[in-house]
Amino acid sequence: MQINPSSIWNDVEVIRKKIPLVHNITNYVVMNNTANALLALGASPVMAHAEPEVADMVSIAGALVINIGTLSDPWISAMTIAAARAKALNIPIVLDPVGVGATSYRTRTARRLIHTASPTIIRGNGSEIMALCELDVSTKGVDSTSASNLAIDSAMALSRELGAVVCVTGETDYILSGESLISVNNGHYMMPRVTGLGCTATALCGAFAAINPDPALAAAHAMAVMGIAGEMAAETAKGPGSLQVNFIDALYQLSETDIQAFFKA
Amino acid sequence: MQINPSSIWNDVEVIRKKIPLVHNITNYVVMNNTANALLALGASPVMAHAEPEVADMVSIAGALVINIGTLSDPWISAMTIAAARAKALNIPIVLDPVGVGATSYRTRTARRLIHTASPTIIRGNGSEIMALCELDVSTKGVDSTSASNLAIDSAMALSRELGAVVCVTGETDYILSGESLISVNNGHYMMPRVTGLGCTATALCGAFAAINPDPALAAAHAMAVMGIAGEMAAETAKGPGSLQVNFIDALYQLSETDIQAFFKA
Amino acid sequence: MQINPSSIWNDVEVIRKKIPLVHNITNYVVMNNTANALLALGASPVMAHAEPEVADMVSIAGALVINIGTLSDPWISAMTIAAARAKALNIPIVLDPVGVGATSYRTRTARRLIHTASPTIIRGNGSEIMALCELDVSTKGVDSTSASNLAIDSAMALSRELGAVVCVTGETDYILSGESLISVNNGHYMMPRVTGLGCTATALCGAFAAINPDPALAAAHAMAVMGIAGEMAAETAKGPGSLQVNFIDALYQLSETDIQAFFKA
Repeated sequence: MQINPSSIWNDVEVIRKKIPLVHNITNYVVMNNTANALLALGASPVMAHAEPEVADMVSIAGALVINIGTLSDPWISAMTIAAARAKALNIPIVLDPVGVGATSYRTRTARRLIHTASPTIIRGNGSEIMALCELDVSTKGVDSTSASNLAIDSAMALSRELGAVVCVTGETDYILSGESLISVNNGHYMMPRVTGLGCTATALCGAFAAINPDPALAAAHAMAVMGIAGEMAAETAKGPGSLQVNFIDALYQLSETDIQAFFKA
Repeated sequence: MQINPSSIWNDVEVIRKKIPLVHNITNYVVMNNTANALLALGASPVMAHAEPEVADMVSIAGALVINIGTLSDPWISAMTIAAARAKALNIPIVLDPVGVGATSYRTRTARRLIHTASPTIIRGNGSEIMALCELDVSTKGVDSTSASNLAIDSAMALSRELGAVVCVTGETDYILSGESLISVNNGHYMMPRVTGLGCTATALCGAFAAINPDPALAAAHAMAVMGIAGEMAAETAKGPGSLQVNFIDALYQLSETDIQAFFKA
Repeated sequence: MQINPSSIWNDVEVIRKKIPLVHNITNYVVMNNTANALLALGASPVMAHAEPEVADMVSIAGALVINIGTLSDPWISAMTIAAARAKALNIPIVLDPVGVGATSYRTRTARRLIHTASPTIIRGNGSEIMALCELDVSTKGVDSTSASNLAIDSAMALSRELGAVVCVTGETDYILSGESLISVNNGHYMMPRVTGLGCTATALCGAFAAINPDPALAAAHAMAVMGIAGEMAAETAKGPGSLQVNFIDALYQLSETDIQAFFKA
């Protein structure tokens, strides 16, 4: 499968026109940045995690994003409830298994969620995808210790087992869906030095999945937009502080010309 | 009623001199930005939500700000306890009914809080104020789907029923207190693309209410300062990322000359 | 005891090379900024607070940072569990008693934690350190009302009683360890107008303590780096918004030449 500047730009335009509501049950660290990235792109974010309201909230959303970055038991319950409702309503679900492998609680939760939450797309770094596949992998907190290409086999196995799109991000991003593979080569080496840009990538998958019925294309378009906005941001950034600010500005300004100039498959 | 550059500037000077403590029980998404906006303006923010401490904390505060953006049961209990103590001590209470109408949990909680928490000021967008008044209104998450002027009648009815100031924000901000109406025409179209600037507006109402005994003037001054700082920020912003950074800088730099130059009633 | 540009730079280089994992159980307001500061310096942050996983998480960390800024009962339990495991594994523990003195819940919790959590380093502003020592001190929320030099006696008493390093920050930072005193005179008057830079200082103590076996030197190096990055950031800042962005950039760019140019003992 292929994506190209036209297919990316078309989805961006649809997001800006339809302003899909993206319901996030995500971690405390990144909530602000995730919401700002979704708004800058053109989507409408909402964060809600209370058990009594998540089913209602997801019912009016175009996508559900679940992120276990700062998980605890009440949040896991809310994730499970929201995912069940999303599945019943055929609303796409994106899962970010942040830090899976770092603790047994996190690993157990992530492995349970990939089966019970029926994710449409799973996005993680190399270490996380490998840990999700029950491979022994040395993990250090929430930062990746494996290059994304080492995780391709795991990602493909996972995709086949679950019938989900698996998106492994790193220097190259790989989007796997059964037998098919899309790779995206955008991005900048300073991006992992901004906390939660991986979580932002996951949230953008939600925005694209809300308007594109093909989850592999949605994930690939999201990764391209992430990487392109990151490269645009890096042009004038003096460090991760200004990179984060410029990144939000770039998502807001993003034009077809920018995508044509920066996209690298 | 009227506000003018002198009355706005006088309140800003008093805030900078008295540095009122503003106790926020607010949502996870905006805590950082809210605290930074209050500090930049000249107030002293504190965030505290544990049931065992909220009554103590509000007792030393100049205002209490309650925001239901990411509510859950323990937080609602804390809001109720803090509001009761604030009321007993005659400390002004500002309520932001974020996303009321989006879920029945949120609507039920917001409608209960407007009666039990005795808010001095309620600030919301058009959709939220209409949903609070039990009008049928199509809501989409936490972003407004109604222009602020459509909500004036609801806001006036709510203000009369509760004896509270109701502040409806949008392209024009309307501050209603019984029969009286103040309107403020500052602001910039890019501001809704920064997450939580509405929540920041609510928090600034707290800072002004802490030093101005007239809550309608306090709310109107807060809205004018929000809009003016937003316009100043937009002059060099390249998108919502730099707008947010510039906005904090503008609150910090804000001078009488700026207010005279930008204020639009 | 003394620190100097070479000793500071040496620790920065070691952090950048070893990339120590710093486990933070911290407050909602500052999580994002704390994580970004640790990443920009060269460390690897993780935030995790669930009781079932904190012992596992701290076991793979180089330091544990405990911050009570937005405390509640479940978080206090997690802090206690994580600290016990850290102590058993000889992993340094840094405690930030945010707002101690403002409420009896906060004071009680902080005083209990200094005894049960066995902190290696305690960092607070003048008011907090005095409140920790059971001195009557007028406190206002989480901002300091006492100059750091007034708290030196309290800090020294506390250091002797607990066998911990006590770091009192303000215009001058004082690092006390039993009889020894290190002072650092870097920093900028605008820094307290950015929310949570004190919490960032605490988190940086964690990064330095993870790689320097002498906790007094670790804390002093962290304070020097904080202050130097703050002064570098202030050179082009127009207010607290751009100061925060520039501060992260400065931590990332920080060179030996910068430290030599800015360091003031």
